[in-house]
Amino acid sequence: MNEVPTLVNGDPITSVSVTDRGFQYGDGVFETIAIYRGAPLLWDRHMARLMRGAERLGIAAPSPSLLVTEAKRLCADAQRAVLKVVVTRGAGARGYATHGTTTPTRVLTLSPWPDYPEHYARIGVSVRICETTLASNPRLAGIKHLNRLEQVLARAEWGSEHAEGLMCDQQGNVVAATMSNIFVVAGGILRTPDVTACGVEGIMRSVVLDATRQLKLQCDIGPIARADVAAAAEIFLSNSLIGVWPVRQIDDTEYTIGPITRHIQEAIREAHCFDRH
Amino acid sequence: MNEVPTLVNGDPITSVSVTDRGFQYGDGVFETIAIYRGAPLLWDRHMARLMRGAERLGIAAPSPSLLVTEAKRLCADAQRAVLKVVVTRGAGARGYATHGTTTPTRVLTLSPWPDYPEHYARIGVSVRICETTLASNPRLAGIKHLNRLEQVLARAEWGSEHAEGLMCDQQGNVVAATMSNIFVVAGGILRTPDVTACGVEGIMRSVVLDATRQLKLQCDIGPIARADVAAAAEIFLSNSLIGVWPVRQIDDTEYTIGPITRHIQEAIREAHCFDRH
Repeated sequence: MNEVPTLVNGDPITSVSVTDRGFQYGDGVFETIAIYRGAPLLWDRHMARLMRGAERLGIAAPSPSLLVTEAKRLCADAQRAVLKVVVTRGAGARGYATHGTTTPTRVLTLSPWPDYPEHYARIGVSVRICETTLASNPRLAGIKHLNRLEQVLARAEWGSEHAEGLMCDQQGNVVAATMSNIFVVAGGILRTPDVTACGVEGIMRSVVLDATRQLKLQCDIGPIARADVAAAAEIFLSNSLIGVWPVRQIDDTEYTIGPITRHIQEAIREAHCFDRH
Repeated sequence: MNEVPTLVNGDPITSVSVTDRGFQYGDGVFETIAIYRGAPLLWDRHMARLMRGAERLGIAAPSPSLLVTEAKRLCADAQRAVLKVVVTRGAGARGYATHGTTTPTRVLTLSPWPDYPEHYARIGVSVRICETTLASNPRLAGIKHLNRLEQVLARAEWGSEHAEGLMCDQQGNVVAATMSNIFVVAGGILRTPDVTACGVEGIMRSVVLDATRQLKLQCDIGPIARADVAAAAEIFLSNSLIGVWPVRQIDDTEYTIGPITRHIQEAIREAHCFDRH
């Protein structure tokens, strides 16, 4: 295990106390941020979600200005990399009760840029439909908290034969992929699931939604049934690192990469929200 | 934050790598074990659940014989204490995929015995019904994994005015309390929820179930509606540290502590499964 550049509460160390509630209970939130030429991309959106998540959990998050100072310190020499920011409730005594836990822990880690094939964005990706489902809990939906076992189990369903896996809720509707949001196109109209019962309010999802408004494309937010996915004219995935990946195959069904997906890819590129990869 | 005696992979250190998947994703399982006169109580049952949980998550757990050696080393001088055993998938690269993560992390921590009032077991406890609900996911139900945000949020709903909080599933049935299982008695028959969709298969719950068989008491396992709780003749909670606590009050409704609860308390004491507290 190679160690990666890390700051824990501002110090260049690579460990946290075993009593940290992030380790004990997954009691915290995180952001995964693209770094380009030493700068974090979409920083304000990432910080806004981090703050929303921390507030939802009742964690007094560190200020974005402190985090940006540390982020720039860690990333100054990085041409292209991934910054992960974790904020937990902090170290505490045993037990679920949070009283006495008043000092959050912040961990910034700089990882290598992932080696996704360059052609994923161009010719699209193959995905599977995962057997692991997402549980519904409005208290935890939308935010990017540290309870990620569902995603871990879903990702363990395949090796390298797919780029991503779609995940359904307990009703069988498609909510997201393990690390990305999903959009489908039918009849010229985009659709993406809401994330009020499960799923994560993706940062690139919000950029895509802004792009649809700029392009005057209709995008509805609501349930997507498995049948809607099967019948879709175009499907694509989004996240902060991948930008937008067209889906060219789901299990044995093939899809074409259509004009709306290309418009969206172009729009998020023009907005300088994501450099080409 | 006082540090507590800790062994990480057998070493007397108190921290783990920030890249540990326990910290990053809550990717692991744990046990909370009563220590009495230097020995862990109900060790075999705890180990069996830990192994089941690790297997469910695809984690190659360390052997119980290694864990018991370390547990005895840590607990030798403890008259009464709490041993927490955490097993995670180990340190790994960023991302949900588990490939390359082959060495699990084990963390044993010895904490002070909790200062629950002695009279809780005698005159019963006051509990609330939590607004935070439990999400259903059969893949994660029953085992004691590290994704515990639901319990954290539920426990944050009250301060010291209650001893515990009951949690319902998405259908409104009562599944458990934040750190304990629930049993209700009606018409002389016990009932406890199944834990196949959510909740944890408690160790003391299994001891109580054994006790009901020895006492030739009928105990059904199945859904408990809010109305069943309201109409119950007796209600009690169980876990490895508290043993059995009768419930004397839920929000504004009072309950009497009945003979079956007392029989169960006596039975688990006689079985030497739990020393009086």
